[in-house]
Amino acid sequence: MPLNDHTVKAFDADIGQLRGLIAQMGGMAEHAIAGAMEALRRHDLEGAQRIIAGDKKLDALELEVEQLAVRIIALRAPLADDLREVVAALKIAGVIERIGDYAKNIAKRIPSIESHGEIEPLSVLPAMSALAVRMVHDALDAFAARDADAAVEVCRRDREVDDFYNSLFRVLVTHMMENPRTIGQVTQLLFIAKNLERVGDHATNIAEMIYYAATGTHMVERDRGALPSLTE
Amino acid sequence: MPLNDHTVKAFDADIGQLRGLIAQMGGMAEHAIAGAMEALRRHDLEGAQRIIAGDKKLDALELEVEQLAVRIIALRAPLADDLREVVAALKIAGVIERIGDYAKNIAKRIPSIESHGEIEPLSVLPAMSALAVRMVHDALDAFAARDADAAVEVCRRDREVDDFYNSLFRVLVTHMMENPRTIGQVTQLLFIAKNLERVGDHATNIAEMIYYAATGTHMVERDRGALPSLTE
Repeated sequence: MPLNDHTVKAFDADIGQLRGLIAQMGGMAEHAIAGAMEALRRHDLEGAQRIIAGDKKLDALELEVEQLAVRIIALRAPLADDLREVVAALKIAGVIERIGDYAKNIAKRIPSIESHGEIEPLSVLPAMSALAVRMVHDALDAFAARDADAAVEVCRRDREVDDFYNSLFRVLVTHMMENPRTIGQVTQLLFIAKNLERVGDHATNIAEMIYYAATGTHMVERDRGALPSLTE
Repeated sequence: MPLNDHTVKAFDADIGQLRGLIAQMGGMAEHAIAGAMEALRRHDLEGAQRIIAGDKKLDALELEVEQLAVRIIALRAPLADDLREVVAALKIAGVIERIGDYAKNIAKRIPSIESHGEIEPLSVLPAMSALAVRMVHDALDAFAARDADAAVEVCRRDREVDDFYNSLFRVLVTHMMENPRTIGQVTQLLFIAKNLERVGDHATNIAEMIYYAATGTHMVERDRGALPSLTE
């Protein structure tokens, strides 16, 4: 395919649309997680239901990204870093859709957590959630800016979310031992904490994809100071 | 691109290679789940370590699938059901890689579960695992045969895995209430059960992708008799 002005402009327009869709999906996933946590805090069952219903929009957007990415690859035949970016967008859309699934999963657990006022560790979850949502947000900013350094920074922060989870895990298990009658509900909180930890992991995955798209090389472990989690 | 014999043959060779890679990944993921459960049963820490180390191979194969799929789309410009199959392969590789992650996650939990002989519900996990692994196996058979009916059948069976999980969830929570000192370990088993339930979900995702690739339409909920899970 001859690389003329028209081709370049058409590709730029396509990639612009692709980035717009990813930004839109990212914003929706962030709001879904934050909304699910807010519904949990207020034991708002209608709010939880809205989060669950809203997940369908993310699924539809993922399909749109997929179709657009395939069309770009087939029609524009992008090369090197352009191709890497299109493939990254395709994969990032899949990861964001999964982050939406975690929001849905958190929302589904809310009806089973009634006496949330009595469970003290619940007060720590919003801070953990804020941290995980912030990672998703910054990862998508890094994608918009094609910023490999910002992507590395996101990965570094995954340790904080993991530390949060590990300490919360111990606190919740202790709480269950001391209050066996709360085990059913605290188990739900444990899964919610795990979901938030996974949101952090997925933000890290997105950041790794951005790094690869921007540089053509994979992020090495020592860049991000990664250590294995104890209670993962 | 002119649709001559050479083009058709080249595409068939490419798609054959793609299917081979997917089959290889699927076999590895099945063995990883089964191996992790066997290591759990025997409290085999070296076996667990091998499962964790082996996950890197799945990651590498996923990358290979991705590169081949992109090359096929860019060079062969497949249309309609051929294009859907290539995109399905790309996405299925991502899902299989995640199934491998669940095997790794199960293996990582094994060192924390010492007194497994004392925890009776552990005896139910292998049956649940066998069911989930079978779903993965049958989903990949359906992919190899482009068989939409077999894909629907895999989705129908997800209910069994969910029922297993829901009943195990209640049993494990009850076990914790009655034996608070085992809470730390039983929590690990709960996460393992959840991982197996997710493996079933992922087999379902693969089956849905196969159905779409084969028919061009999305599987509707009533085809598979899906009902929401209670304790998901």
